[in-house]
Parts: sequence; structure tokens; C-alpha cells
Amino acid sequence: MADQYDVIVLGSGPGGYVAAIRCAQLGLKTAIVERENLGGICLNWGCIPTKALLRSAEILHYAQHAKDYGLKIAGSIEADLEAVVKRSRGVAKQLNQGVTHLMKKNKIAVHMGEGTLTGPTSLTVKGDPGSRSGAGKGEEKLTAKHIIVATGARARDLPFAPADGKRVWTYRHAMTPPEMPKKLLVIGSGAIGIEFASFYNDMGCEVTVVEMLDRIVPVEDVDVSAFLEKSLTKQGMTIMTGAGVEDIKVSASGVKAKIKDKAGKVSESEFSHCIVAIGIVPNTENVGLEKLVEMDRGFIQIDPYGRTRSKGLWAIGDCTPGPWLAHKASHEGVTTAEAIAKELGNKDVHPHPLDRNNIPGCTYCHPQIASVGMTEAKAKEAGYTVKAGTFPFIGNGKAIALGEAEGFTKTVFDAKTGELLGAHMVGAEVTEMIQGFVVGKTLETTEAELMQTVFPHPTISESMHESVLASYGRALHI
Amino acid sequence: MADQYDVIVLGSGPGGYVAAIRCAQLGLKTAIVERENLGGICLNWGCIPTKALLRSAEILHYAQHAKDYGLKIAGSIEADLEAVVKRSRGVAKQLNQGVTHLMKKNKIAVHMGEGTLTGPTSLTVKGDPGSRSGAGKGEEKLTAKHIIVATGARARDLPFAPADGKRVWTYRHAMTPPEMPKKLLVIGSGAIGIEFASFYNDMGCEVTVVEMLDRIVPVEDVDVSAFLEKSLTKQGMTIMTGAGVEDIKVSASGVKAKIKDKAGKVSESEFSHCIVAIGIVPNTENVGLEKLVEMDRGFIQIDPYGRTRSKGLWAIGDCTPGPWLAHKASHEGVTTAEAIAKELGNKDVHPHPLDRNNIPGCTYCHPQIASVGMTEAKAKEAGYTVKAGTFPFIGNGKAIALGEAEGFTKTVFDAKTGELLGAHMVGAEVTEMIQGFVVGKTLETTEAELMQTVFPHPTISESMHESVLASYGRALHI
Repeated sequence: MADQYDVIVLGSGPGGYVAAIRCAQLGLKTAIVERENLGGICLNWGCIPTKALLRSAEILHYAQHAKDYGLKIAGSIEADLEAVVKRSRGVAKQLNQGVTHLMKKNKIAVHMGEGTLTGPTSLTVKGDPGSRSGAGKGEEKLTAKHIIVATGARARDLPFAPADGKRVWTYRHAMTPPEMPKKLLVIGSGAIGIEFASFYNDMGCEVTVVEMLDRIVPVEDVDVSAFLEKSLTKQGMTIMTGAGVEDIKVSASGVKAKIKDKAGKVSESEFSHCIVAIGIVPNTENVGLEKLVEMDRGFIQIDPYGRTRSKGLWAIGDCTPGPWLAHKASHEGVTTAEAIAKELGNKDVHPHPLDRNNIPGCTYCHPQIASVGMTEAKAKEAGYTVKAGTFPFIGNGKAIALGEAEGFTKTVFDAKTGELLGAHMVGAEVTEMIQGFVVGKTLETTEAELMQTVFPHPTISESMHESVLASYGRALHI
Repeated sequence: MADQYDVIVLGSGPGGYVAAIRCAQLGLKTAIVERENLGGICLNWGCIPTKALLRSAEILHYAQHAKDYGLKIAGSIEADLEAVVKRSRGVAKQLNQGVTHLMKKNKIAVHMGEGTLTGPTSLTVKGDPGSRSGAGKGEEKLTAKHIIVATGARARDLPFAPADGKRVWTYRHAMTPPEMPKKLLVIGSGAIGIEFASFYNDMGCEVTVVEMLDRIVPVEDVDVSAFLEKSLTKQGMTIMTGAGVEDIKVSASGVKAKIKDKAGKVSESEFSHCIVAIGIVPNTENVGLEKLVEMDRGFIQIDPYGRTRSKGLWAIGDCTPGPWLAHKASHEGVTTAEAIAKELGNKDVHPHPLDRNNIPGCTYCHPQIASVGMTEAKAKEAGYTVKAGTFPFIGNGKAIALGEAEGFTKTVFDAKTGELLGAHMVGAEVTEMIQGFVVGKTLETTEAELMQTVFPHPTISESMHESVLASYGRALHI
């Protein structure tokens, strides 16, 4: 019997649905299997709805500081948490409908239900309302020439305090809070932890962040961590680094947390709510993967094109090695779709593996963070002699005009060749700016080309130019 | 007698003061001559203070739309024009003091007064309070090995209605309005005209824009002009293209303007105020330039390094051929400073002439515009077979989450080689994003490298990636 599809994609997050679209663009008969919401976590419970929440917090901040801009607001300014969350859910729904539309437009068959592999190129979908194969009530058997696993990941639980959605939250609960927390404990200071800490702090909640490592946002350059800690502390947040939560007791009115501080002293504090943001666990159990793929701590091992060790079975995104970022997943989706098309005989596609040294990262706290490539410390560890320079936004006219003079751009170059090794930014608009350095790195830029580039005035992006100049002792505005 | 300086820079706008700083960095004994405010028009009366005004209008807009973000503002929201202008002047002052500090730090001698060339490498400064040469009361004679002319430009007047600062304004009056205009006529829809039209419209004023050519922002891609016209009209602005102001009569209460519309019909309308933004005139009269340099319509003719025809005399910025943009001027400042240092024997500098095809332009109306390189029409005129594609912000998750789904990115490629010829953006944050395309163009990018680049999610900059994909019929989210 012929396969029903050329490609089935299992999971419809940004990696999955982009892989499916690219397959369809390449003329492959494609299906997608999703157990919950088209668009996966990112669209429905991740990147997109948090950005909507943070936008409301940003507008609230502007309104509260209206006087600084010469404006008069006569009455009170309040955030209506229910309305803020409702807006965020509306944005998620709009995006979800967008993906539904894209599937339809690209003639991708959608099977809603729990997919389980029965072999490298076959699976069953339980609960599929569109069941037609007669495999059993609400169960469908599907086969394809190729299957792409894109099952994503979920939040890691604290062993002694699993998230209950009432007092102990994961990002998912934090996004649709049953009530406004009064005193919030955030465990973990990666992107997710810091974004929620920033959101709830802006919303007027008392926030404490506990980070095990010696600095917050520990994957970032040490200068960024230090700057952000200072800024968040100034905004009223309590930040404990080198500290650990040793136990949590949940009651009807909140949580009691035993926290060991940097000095080793354990004390107990009460909070109304707690967000656990200590990392992710790949969704690779109960999918039938065990006999088909190699795994390392649950993550599916793949070649640069997404191949697993079973012919016809591929994997992309958060269920594979990191960084666990939506744009990495969707880029892998394109690469894998093209690699499959090539295997199926398409001679016009040239799949291009991901350059893992050139994946930007963004954190949407206030101030924002964006970075790409190596930190100064990592570059030195890797044996480079570096030239690094920093330019503060206080020397940038646009930042001052915007009232956003808090931030900086830092660049790290190989002193021998001038290669741009990394770039690190903190401050307003940086998440939209970092791509300039990413484009530069794709094209193997050195400091010379960046110096020759005319950055428009007046923009905060001029700080990118200045930071390159600063790396070579030539900054103009400082 | 030895020259007092290696280099004197005449004029302290972004071109002039950057040239002076770069000269000083290269160890040259440097002076700067300024007749009014250090920092010139740009810092004191141009780019920077207008951005401050527009920021206040932006925050006002956010506050007025707070409900859309789930916020409650109980009382009235008003712009206090005096406070808005005061803030803008404060920003200008801060930047002006910054330049003063940079001059001091770089040991650049500042001569305040009206400079007039007496030869290619000598000048007098009238009104210089620091006069020490005994050339006369408040007059100083200065000599240098090289002089850089950076005298800039000023607003062009309407012959029949010279700006009076009361009813007929240039950008300069529009920046410090004596009162809030009720009904404003803006003549000219280039960057300056459109920015003020947008500012006053946001501030609640009734605005009419008259543009002689057949579309607004006529240097931009035709799609950008059409999009912006639609958006500004929706915001309540009246836009008349293909129209001309034939006469203006000023009275104590306003202006009466005779306007010929597209169809050739002349009618008279009353306005409370009028902003004239019909271009610039170079400040090249009364500087002693006539016998020393070639001029074309008043603009000093230079070689790619800024040389005039007189040895030792150089020119940069708005008093030379366009584009008349601050970042073009400051880039020329660096190039010319380095060329002079090289002439003076410095073997380590390698001045790099400006690439005139890679100078971005930004307009800070609402929505913003940013572009670089050729429009689609210009590329076709130049004989290219083009591949062009557009991606609308409504397909971008971050734009939707921000509540800023109005806008697009358009890219234009040479179909034969894949060279990026131009990029055109309209919408939120685009002025900070365009540099990614500029960096790409510096490095002679083709579509392939831009497709391989991982743009971070969720950002509006993903629309840059999608527009490249769209140019090749491969957009994912549309």
C-alpha cells in the first residue's frame, strides 16, 4: 500500500508548522499532527502571549511616566489584570487562527490528536476527530515516506513542589493568573523567569528572583548580567544570586520557601505565589521514540540536517539539542524539509545546516536583552585574543530623546583576524536591532566592514557602530 | 609663521564635530569654529529635538489607547505643549553639552563666532569671545594646514511667503511653537514636512499636507508612499498630492493659502499656521568660498574624500552634494579626517570613501519609514531585472502582540546575481531595523545569505527575513 503522505510532522510549534509549510512549498504531500493547539506552546502559551503581556506592562509604564514626556493625566492609571490577560489570549488566538489558515492555504492535512510512532515512518493518532482509517474509534493510522518529530518541550518541575496552577506556577499559569500575585517568588533567572519577574514587577507586584548561579541571565555576557541586576534592583526587585530554594510548603494562602542564600544561610520567607522557571524537559516520552532514536537526557540526537538514526525519521526544535529557541526550531524546520525534498529527488533544493554560533537570543524584560555569538569570557576560554568594546546608550542622542538612555552595546572581536565573535546588547529596542550583527556574522564580517557601514541617525542602532569603534579605541561619542 | 592648527573645522554639526574628533584621535591639533550652538542644527534644531517631540506624541498616543492594552485611565489625558517643548529643548541642551564635553575631552579648541575664509587654509572668526590674535575687537585670524568646511544648510523659503516665525514657520519655529496650531498647512512632504505633520496631527491639530509631486515622501518606494498616505489619511490628515501652493497671505489670525489641486482647480483655504518644508539651501554664501571652490547650485563640489579644488580646503555634509543626512555628514567627517591625516604623513590610516548607494534614510512619522538603496522603480530604470517581495506586519506575531500590525518590509534584488539592491520598510521600529540591510549591503549580500540568517523570534525583524523569502516566492507566514 502506498504511503498516505510524503511527510508527516508530529507537533505544530514554530519548528513543526514551518517544516510542514516548507514541505508543502516543495510540492510534498504533507500532514501535521497536533494534540492541543496549532502553533504549539510558542504561539499559544509562550513567546507570543508573553510579549502581549509585556506590551501592556510597557504601556502602563509609559502612562505612569507621562509627566516626564510633557503630558498630563488627571486621574488614576491602573492595569486591569483580567483585561490584560484577555488581550494576550486574543493575540494568541489570532496567531493560532493564522496557523490554521496557513495549513489550509498550503493544503496541509491537519490531524488533531495524540500521535505515537509505530515505526520510523508510521504513527497512530489517538483522539483524531477526523479519523477515517477505521483503526478504532477516534484512532487513525498514518504512514509517510518521512516523519519529522517536533514535539517540543515543557517546563521542568521542582521535585518538592510540582506546579499546581494555584500557588506554584509554570510559565503557563503565569500567563493566565487566577489573581494578581502580591508577593511573587521567581525561581530561575533565564529568559522565562526574568520576563515574568519583569512583567509582574511592572504590574506593581513585589518580586523576588532566586538564581542558583552567581548571576542572573547566566548565558549572557557578564556585563549584561551585572547591568540588568542593577537595573531590576533599582526598579524594586529583590535579586538573590548564588542562592537556592531548598523547600516549598504550599498553603491555601501562599507558599513558604526555604531559601539558602549566597553565604549559606537558610531562611524561610512567605510569598503569595511562586513561578518555577528552572528549565525545560523535552517531550520525548510516550511518543514511541525509544527504539528508534538515540537520546541524551531525553533530547533526540540528530545530524546537521535533522536525521535521527532511523531512516525516514527526523527531529527538529526543542526535543533536540539546544538552544531551545523558536527561531532555531523554525530554521531547522526549513533545513529538514529541504533535506527531505532532496532525498525524494528534488535537485533544486540546497539545504543549509544551521550555524550554531550565529543564533541570536532575546529576553523581553525591561530593559530588553539581545545577543548573538560568544560572550567575552567564552571567546577568551576558546583561546581567542579579543578586542572588546562597549558603548553606553547615554552617549546616544536617540536614546536620550526617547527617554531610554539606560543600556549599552558590547562587541567582541578576534584581535588577530577582526572576525566578529559576539555582540551583546541591553536596553530599549535591542531585540529588533541584534539582527544587524547576525547578518554581519552570516557574511563573516570583520570590524572593518562594520566601521564602514553608515548607521542611520538618529537611531539607537548607532550604538552598534560606536561599540565596534570602541572595540578598537575609536568611539566618537564618549 | 607656523600654522596654529593642523586642522580647522568650520561648522560644528554632526559632520563637523565628528571630523574634529576623528582628527584629534589621529593626533592632529584641531580647532572648530561655530557661530551659534555646538552640535549645529541637527543636535540643537533638527534630528534630536524633533525625535523628542515625536516621542511625547507617541506616549500621548499610547495613553489615549491605554484601554486597548487592558489599562484603565480614569481622568483626562492632555499634552502640555509648553512642557513637551521644554522637554525637547532639554534634550537638545543635554546633547549640546555632550558635544562641548567631547571637544574638551579631545582637546579641540573651540572658537565661537562667524568664520570667513581668507584663503584655503586661513580664516577670520568674527565675534570670537576668545580672541587672542589681536586682529581687531572680537575678531581672530586663524591658520591651519587644512580647513574642513562643514557649514551645513538651512530651510528654503517660499518666495512669496518668507518664514516669519509667527504664522509661517520653518522646522525651527515648528520646534518651539509660540502656540498650538489649530489648523496647520504643511507645504512639502519630505522627511521634515511629514514628521511635523505627524507630530501635530498626533497632538490633536487639524493638518493638511500639500505636495507638488504625485505622491508623499517621493524619494521612497512607491509602495511606501501609498501605504503612508493611506495611514495618515486614516489618522485624519488631509493630503493633497500633485498640488501646489500658489500664494499665501499672512494676517494676524492666520494664513490664507491659494492651493492648486491635482485637477488644476485653484481654491483658497484658511489655516492658523503654515510650515514650509520645501527643501534646503546650502550655507555657502558669505563664507569666502566663491574663489576657492566649484559650486553647483550652491553646493560645494568635492572628490570622494572631501577635497575641493583648492589644496588644503575640504568640505563635508549638507553644504556638499546630498543626500543631506546627518549620518552621511558624520561619515564624511571621518573619511576626510583620515584623508587629511594621510596627507600629513600618517601611514596607518586608510580612508574609505562613502558608498552612496548604501546610505539609509529614516523618517520618524507615525508609522515610521526606513529605507536603503534603490526603490523597485529605480532598479528597473537602471536596467535591472528585479525580484521584489513584500511582507506585511499583519503576518508577524510580535507586531500583533505589540498592537503595531500596520506596516511592511519590501526587498528588491537583482534577479541575475541575487544582489540586494534596496530595502524599504514602514511601520513600528523600522528605523532601528534598517541597519541589518545596510550591514548586508556593505558585505554585498545576496538573497541566499539573508535567507540563511536566523532572525530572532518574536521580533518585527522577522519581517525582513520573510520579505527576502517573499521576493523568491517562499514566504512562510503569508
